[in-house]
Amino acid sequence: MSGSSNDFESIDRLFHPRAVAVVGVSDRRGNQGRFLIESMTNCGYKGKIYAVNPREKVGQWESYPRVSEIPGPVDHIIVSVPFTAVAEVIADAGKKGVRSAAMFSSGFSESGTEEGRRLQEELARVGRESGVRLIGPNCMGFYCPSTGLSFRPDMAMVDGHIGFISQSGGVCITGIFMGADRGIGFSKAISYGNETDLGAPEFLDYFAEDPQTKIIILYIEGTKRGRLLFDALKRASSKKPVFVLKGGLTASGLRAVSSHTGALAGAGIMWEKAVRQAGAAMVNDLDELIDAAQAAQMLAKPAGRRVGLLTISGGFGVFATDLIEKAGFEMPEYSDETRADLFKIIKNPGTSVKNPLDMAASFFQPKHYPKIISALNTDKVIDLFVTLLAIDYLTFRGEGGAQWAIFLIEKLLDAFKELKKPNAIVFFQTGMNEARLTLERTIVKAGYPLYPTVERALSALDRRIRAR
Amino acid sequence: MSGSSNDFESIDRLFHPRAVAVVGVSDRRGNQGRFLIESMTNCGYKGKIYAVNPREKVGQWESYPRVSEIPGPVDHIIVSVPFTAVAEVIADAGKKGVRSAAMFSSGFSESGTEEGRRLQEELARVGRESGVRLIGPNCMGFYCPSTGLSFRPDMAMVDGHIGFISQSGGVCITGIFMGADRGIGFSKAISYGNETDLGAPEFLDYFAEDPQTKIIILYIEGTKRGRLLFDALKRASSKKPVFVLKGGLTASGLRAVSSHTGALAGAGIMWEKAVRQAGAAMVNDLDELIDAAQAAQMLAKPAGRRVGLLTISGGFGVFATDLIEKAGFEMPEYSDETRADLFKIIKNPGTSVKNPLDMAASFFQPKHYPKIISALNTDKVIDLFVTLLAIDYLTFRGEGGAQWAIFLIEKLLDAFKELKKPNAIVFFQTGMNEARLTLERTIVKAGYPLYPTVERALSALDRRIRAR
Repeated sequence: MSGSSNDFESIDRLFHPRAVAVVGVSDRRGNQGRFLIESMTNCGYKGKIYAVNPREKVGQWESYPRVSEIPGPVDHIIVSVPFTAVAEVIADAGKKGVRSAAMFSSGFSESGTEEGRRLQEELARVGRESGVRLIGPNCMGFYCPSTGLSFRPDMAMVDGHIGFISQSGGVCITGIFMGADRGIGFSKAISYGNETDLGAPEFLDYFAEDPQTKIIILYIEGTKRGRLLFDALKRASSKKPVFVLKGGLTASGLRAVSSHTGALAGAGIMWEKAVRQAGAAMVNDLDELIDAAQAAQMLAKPAGRRVGLLTISGGFGVFATDLIEKAGFEMPEYSDETRADLFKIIKNPGTSVKNPLDMAASFFQPKHYPKIISALNTDKVIDLFVTLLAIDYLTFRGEGGAQWAIFLIEKLLDAFKELKKPNAIVFFQTGMNEARLTLERTIVKAGYPLYPTVERALSALDRRIRAR
Repeated sequence: MSGSSNDFESIDRLFHPRAVAVVGVSDRRGNQGRFLIESMTNCGYKGKIYAVNPREKVGQWESYPRVSEIPGPVDHIIVSVPFTAVAEVIADAGKKGVRSAAMFSSGFSESGTEEGRRLQEELARVGRESGVRLIGPNCMGFYCPSTGLSFRPDMAMVDGHIGFISQSGGVCITGIFMGADRGIGFSKAISYGNETDLGAPEFLDYFAEDPQTKIIILYIEGTKRGRLLFDALKRASSKKPVFVLKGGLTASGLRAVSSHTGALAGAGIMWEKAVRQAGAAMVNDLDELIDAAQAAQMLAKPAGRRVGLLTISGGFGVFATDLIEKAGFEMPEYSDETRADLFKIIKNPGTSVKNPLDMAASFFQPKHYPKIISALNTDKVIDLFVTLLAIDYLTFRGEGGAQWAIFLIEKLLDAFKELKKPNAIVFFQTGMNEARLTLERTIVKAGYPLYPTVERALSALDRRIRAR
């Protein structure tokens, strides 16, 4: 295997190691190496797992003092030793023919010290010479539900279609958990930390080709390989929707980056322009990143920005309309024909049918839902729908109210199946109660993206339209 | 009582009626009048309640054909009859000496018809001549936890310090429910719909004087009494924090207003300027309105915009720092003394202590919390704190993980009691599980404002600073 090869096959097999060795495992309570082994045993990794400790035998697992002394093949190692000892471990792994190393250890360029910077350069050199592809240091490494690679024993292992590249471990973990309960799973995720070898460019190219990956999300703080990154971003964006969260867009953010991953972050405005030119869409925080992925997975791309707003409260319709226009969407009136059809169903006293469409009392009569959807399907001026559900006050009525709310939602979701345009549901979070969770889960289970505020729905829809 | 008097006493006694009559009650299933009577009986109203129906006796309650035929005193009526019959009911109530009428009936100026407009003018005239103060039509009327006035049988009746004036009934109801589970209760709320007599100016002046009301929130779509409104807004804002959500700031929003409350909405930019000049703070949606009220109730007003960011994940610290700077806040570095104190506690390998402060492993050692708080209290450059908790992945571990998370949060909240500066908690919503609800409730119960995203915390803090 060539150490410099970035073709699809060479990266793909990194996610399918026959055996993994964790370096830096001890019997000591709270030992990080043990945690990393348990991450794989708990999360379903089927290959062989070895523990490596140069100074002592480790009771629980098959253990060796060095990677090179393990008898069978080892494809991947996870390194959790003090930062001064990492390079030696990589060099030894190279002798063994190990393909890749995820380096958990920190204390390198992110420390801001001369020694840290020097050791990281040393690492990069040892990686190149040994033929071991490096992920990190200061990273969590690989997560892959289909092969059971994981970096926490309690990770949600939901297989799916999102490819997640994250320079931050915490952002990667939280993002995966956020996705799990919102109905989106991951093909693979990589927390790559300080970029000494493999990083965003390689994984963007990989996800662009990976047939399981339909959508790509990236959290990045900076890179020394700007040109390479943006070329890869362009290639990936031409094939799949790509959403980017950039940490360190502001002066204070840049300072924060330097002590986190020590990356060269660059000016915020240049990033925004470059990401847009590459055809990817920028978001502002992790919620928006997952929101956008959810929209991309669950909704067809709207043909334009003309919104039909459905509501059961006039006031919500009014302020949501303002937010829709402010976010660069339009709210055209329905055609006369559609309005006439809708008016037959929704008879508010003396009120003509408008956009926003106030379902009012019709919301509480599920027999009307299919007729409303059918009328909306005749329209030619709407590209996408936004449905506002401010109904979980029903859940305050106790068991009966909650059951009624669930009944209405299920009927509405059934009717929505016939709606021909994409539809995002805003489910206002009024009460902190269990019934609300049930309603949210019902909506997610039916395959709808669910947003707690109008702003978040609009942000996701905007990114859905901007990305491929 | 003079019909034109708007002094504190005359409005205050409207919330303490000795007896209430609901006009338009029948035994028919789904009858709105019955629903309105049950709203008060279920919500604790202690005064006498009468049902009025001109055509039939109503079995369940003491009923009369007209208000004027009720033998005892009646201070307030709630009118739920067809729109063409409302004026006659008001005139009759005037003979009886009724103080106020909340008119649920719709079909007036919001209908956009000439007849609706004419009937609304007629109503206003009858109100003036009869001495009955009018709320509505097209409104829900009064909500008052201390006297049990309510407009739904299932309302959360949490007595508290927020005065809520809402032109929309749906926004009013949902806002009250949102507040209930977030630890803020209401002194009174008024849904006033189409403004024929009493409206935002009168209730702003009232809340400005009301000793129970500490914070005022307003949802408004428009008014014919612009000068009066802004004078009242100015008077109220000079005494208490006032937050305003204006529906109909955009062209599409204006169209939506016309079919909702039929109000004269005016240009958005003029509203924004006028509200700012009055000393109140504008928000963009209902969540922000409740978020701002929560911040105003739970946090002292920050002396400035210099934020100390506490986090347990570097990546979250980075993108949150960007959001903080973009929202017009600053992130100064701590003084050398504070940094030295913090470094003794939080020893990240080779990393100096910065702002954002990554608590990292210290987060999992509660014994460190009081020391960290004590070190932060020595600092002179920070005006307020924002704490990022991306920890509910612990709840995915099942019972044990959830209990550990709750234990850590309780210890942290205990330590925060000693923090001398205001502190807003961002609790990222990763999983949709019951343990997350428990964590959220724990934070609210400890008296902290809780925000699901960094943006919402910053928006609430920004408004907290802008308002009185």
